[in-house]
Amino acid sequence: MLTQTQRLTLVEQVAYQIQEKIENSEWQVGMRIPPEPELMEQLQVSRNTLREAIRALTYAGLLKTRQGDGTYVCSSSVLGSVIKKVIQHTDKLESLEVRYALEREAAALATLRRGEEDLEAIRTCLDQCRQAASQQDLKAYAHWDVEFHKMVIAASHNQLMANLYNHISEALQNMVLETKDFKNAAFYLDSHDLLYQAIANQDCHQAEEAVRLYIEKARAKLC
Amino acid sequence: MLTQTQRLTLVEQVAYQIQEKIENSEWQVGMRIPPEPELMEQLQVSRNTLREAIRALTYAGLLKTRQGDGTYVCSSSVLGSVIKKVIQHTDKLESLEVRYALEREAAALATLRRGEEDLEAIRTCLDQCRQAASQQDLKAYAHWDVEFHKMVIAASHNQLMANLYNHISEALQNMVLETKDFKNAAFYLDSHDLLYQAIANQDCHQAEEAVRLYIEKARAKLC
Repeated sequence: MLTQTQRLTLVEQVAYQIQEKIENSEWQVGMRIPPEPELMEQLQVSRNTLREAIRALTYAGLLKTRQGDGTYVCSSSVLGSVIKKVIQHTDKLESLEVRYALEREAAALATLRRGEEDLEAIRTCLDQCRQAASQQDLKAYAHWDVEFHKMVIAASHNQLMANLYNHISEALQNMVLETKDFKNAAFYLDSHDLLYQAIANQDCHQAEEAVRLYIEKARAKLC
Repeated sequence: MLTQTQRLTLVEQVAYQIQEKIENSEWQVGMRIPPEPELMEQLQVSRNTLREAIRALTYAGLLKTRQGDGTYVCSSSVLGSVIKKVIQHTDKLESLEVRYALEREAAALATLRRGEEDLEAIRTCLDQCRQAASQQDLKAYAHWDVEFHKMVIAASHNQLMANLYNHISEALQNMVLETKDFKNAAFYLDSHDLLYQAIANQDCHQAEEAVRLYIEKARAKLC
């Protein structure tokens, strides 16, 4: 099949090649990208072209240049960096309501589509959460809590939903860390366990109810 | 209050100024931006700086240069242009499921928060839909259908939800136009009317049920 050709400038072509390396995780967040001479050699372009491509990617939020140090990968995708900027200007209740919309529907879909591997992954996160809570390890507890929700979303087998959700939850991660404590740990662990059981038993109604329970608790804390 | 200073390059500063004009609708989608000499004069920058800023904005998806013609605004926000690219690679069922998640929760919130103006705006879209259907005007029908859903989302008074939803629905607009016909018009008009009544009567359960009804119909058409 013939596809419409797109005329890309050399700078755009170079920028897309670098973007691809980042989006398929060949270059990971936090990594310093190779020095200019190496990239000029690899991509067979001039210093000016390379620099302009890097500036375009910096503007798009994928790279960050530290004066006198080098250029680092600071986001794994353009969608992620854009959502991060939007979330920074959003209040917590609004973010919670969007999380609720996505988590409830993903939980319902997960009851229909989850495989054995999904159940195992969700179970592991839950066990890690419980262990972190018993050891009063707040950082691990917050980490595995976020992972638990990502695994539930993944079990919906809807890539667009997972994509949006994961970027939103990454952008919210700092807020989660700030506000997390062990006061309601028992409640959250129980309602998360209820959600796991509902997904395992393919009980759509109970899955939605479990999501409603923990979101209501979080909402009460915000108000 | 002192805020952390950010060192921006001149190109970034120019690009942000242009981005702001686009995001606050001073420059609208479809508009040709002023010619180079005029912008150089306005922004007090060199031709090279201006050109690089425009290339960065082109890469970010806000501008498009047509050879021998000029540079046009092609998206109203960076989030919009990124979501458009993501949606192009998403299948229709996945998009419908994400729409369902957002529309259901927005409808529930709208029953709590809608004001008189929201109700009027939703009512107007519904009347226009009905009129377009009676005149067999497919383009107007699809347009007012999209507007109806946007107004319901707006009545949730959740800015993040509206932001995400509007970009997704703009990205889906072409698909809506392609697949829209009058075969099920009566069904959609009735279920949309049910949703309007539920929001007016602040009946959360009926609002969610109305959304479920029309999404199920759309899902059946896809399968």
